[in-house]
Amino acid sequence: MPENIRIALDAMGGDHGPGVVVSGAALALEQHPNARFLLFGDEAKVGPLLSAHPQLKGASRLVHTDVAVRMEDKPSQALRNGRWKSSMWLAIDAVKKGEADVAVSAGNTGALMAMAKFNLRMLPGIERPAIAAVWPTVTGACVVLDLGASIGADAQGLVDMAVMGSAMSRVLFQLDRPKVGLLNIGVEEVKGLESVREASRILREEPLPHVDYVGFVEGDDIGSGKADVVVTEGFAGNIALKTAEGTAHQFAEYLKFAISQSIWSKLGYLLARPAFRMLREKMDPGKANGGVFLGLNGIVIKSHGGTNAEGFAAAINVGHEMVREELLGKISATIRRHAGETKVARAAGGAGS
Amino acid sequence: MPENIRIALDAMGGDHGPGVVVSGAALALEQHPNARFLLFGDEAKVGPLLSAHPQLKGASRLVHTDVAVRMEDKPSQALRNGRWKSSMWLAIDAVKKGEADVAVSAGNTGALMAMAKFNLRMLPGIERPAIAAVWPTVTGACVVLDLGASIGADAQGLVDMAVMGSAMSRVLFQLDRPKVGLLNIGVEEVKGLESVREASRILREEPLPHVDYVGFVEGDDIGSGKADVVVTEGFAGNIALKTAEGTAHQFAEYLKFAISQSIWSKLGYLLARPAFRMLREKMDPGKANGGVFLGLNGIVIKSHGGTNAEGFAAAINVGHEMVREELLGKISATIRRHAGETKVARAAGGAGS
Repeated sequence: MPENIRIALDAMGGDHGPGVVVSGAALALEQHPNARFLLFGDEAKVGPLLSAHPQLKGASRLVHTDVAVRMEDKPSQALRNGRWKSSMWLAIDAVKKGEADVAVSAGNTGALMAMAKFNLRMLPGIERPAIAAVWPTVTGACVVLDLGASIGADAQGLVDMAVMGSAMSRVLFQLDRPKVGLLNIGVEEVKGLESVREASRILREEPLPHVDYVGFVEGDDIGSGKADVVVTEGFAGNIALKTAEGTAHQFAEYLKFAISQSIWSKLGYLLARPAFRMLREKMDPGKANGGVFLGLNGIVIKSHGGTNAEGFAAAINVGHEMVREELLGKISATIRRHAGETKVARAAGGAGS
Repeated sequence: MPENIRIALDAMGGDHGPGVVVSGAALALEQHPNARFLLFGDEAKVGPLLSAHPQLKGASRLVHTDVAVRMEDKPSQALRNGRWKSSMWLAIDAVKKGEADVAVSAGNTGALMAMAKFNLRMLPGIERPAIAAVWPTVTGACVVLDLGASIGADAQGLVDMAVMGSAMSRVLFQLDRPKVGLLNIGVEEVKGLESVREASRILREEPLPHVDYVGFVEGDDIGSGKADVVVTEGFAGNIALKTAEGTAHQFAEYLKFAISQSIWSKLGYLLARPAFRMLREKMDPGKANGGVFLGLNGIVIKSHGGTNAEGFAAAINVGHEMVREELLGKISATIRRHAGETKVARAAGGAGS
């Protein structure tokens, strides 16, 4: 584990650009004094912002580029126009070159995924990348993936996600064998997508080290704490995530409206204000900001595009934790140990793990 | 429109059986004095319950059967063991024979769908059935389908759902051209499943009467009121529904916990109690209970299996409204008029609608 954790930032990404990135980095540095930042972006814009945060400036290096990937660019456009030179590419490339331990961007998801895949390449044994994030539950939190890196997944792809999600969950929650569930539309073995049923069979019959497979889970189980890791393909995963965000927002709107209806409920609100603050903290999507791109030869974190400084700091913190706890090593170890147990060990007569 | 609305009930369906069904029917009768009930179930169990509700008994006829579909039966088992004779089959069959206008069951969803499809058959022009339900939004409510009748849907299937969902939305919300959105993982035309993109092209290029197509919507748009009808295939739809239910439950748990933390917040809660009651009403899944099976030659309503009497009454009320406002006629009219405009009219030179 490196003494300092070196974080590459795409300073031009996100709806609000360098202002949020720099303020977010300043906040993250307060929490993690061993963070060192490598910022890529327009010096004329980022430089003055950095100067306003002397502490951060002392822990940072700014590399100028005037090319930025736009939020509306298609992945192919972004690669064509931004490869080798955009702030997003350069942040990823710093990870590739070993100059940074993790890259963080609030930019265009599709472009970030395409560039990360193109530049960093996949981990041996993993076919497709996935986006994972932390989902608050009644009892704590769980890891959910894929949240939209790709559409559809075959059985092996889902099993790979079980491996990667369990590694992330081990890093975040200090568990040895996280409980892993497959998202489905019923808990009976006969239900759901063929690929999901087949993945379930594999996870039962060829148990993975560090994966405690608990079977199918449904949409309402995600937030219940039934599993530490919930695995699904990216279309359903993205819809589940956004639906949950929408429902939380809706609940907050109803609550606000209900409270505004009488002087008594307003007074009650004032008395219960600390309780409401706690509620807001719990349900604030910013607090859980930071999708982790899994399956790549390097760690890349995607922040919500519309986030604020606090949210961007949360994304940086996720990256910091992944590096500190050696996420990549844990994924690779699970894959290797599994391969060792199920294939090499059998063939060679007990090479073991 | 018939003077009385005749409702067939599967008295044995659901986790709690006849007790909930009979009490639910009694509640629904209070709200709709023109309802007439045809109950199918075990006379020894249902008879005494009916006798405890003399008003309901006067508006009901009980038909004995001692066969009931179990909650854990596969659709094929249910058909094999329950066809011609189970309470579920007989309720559907009453619709088929014209003895009832709608059937309501809290039983096994898969079995109910299989029996309804087998017995009632599909509407001409519709390939596959869908389950639709009312989803509360910040501004009111919308219709969401398919919530799990089938997994996957091709472009034409999604277009058919747009037709059926808009008919249901017209019935419920008295709109002439409901806004219809396709659920996707981004709002740009280049994103998402091929079938969803193709359905979008059809809805843009061959506009349907009574469908105001508004493009792609994301998970967090469902509860925002952006569309009156949200169309998706059944896997993602079911996951979205259950995730929203789970999130609402989670929010309620957090709120309860936050309020229990101090004497001041408890006092605040007491003062704001009417506001919390309003909130609970809004988010209570029981209030929006009643999935409508669309695409069949007859109206069948599925209630949540675990619902209470109030929830079962809500499901009956949905059925009552669908009959009163002539749902089937409206679906057929949209299909016919569309066919008339796009095919017959062109060929025959203006047969019109």
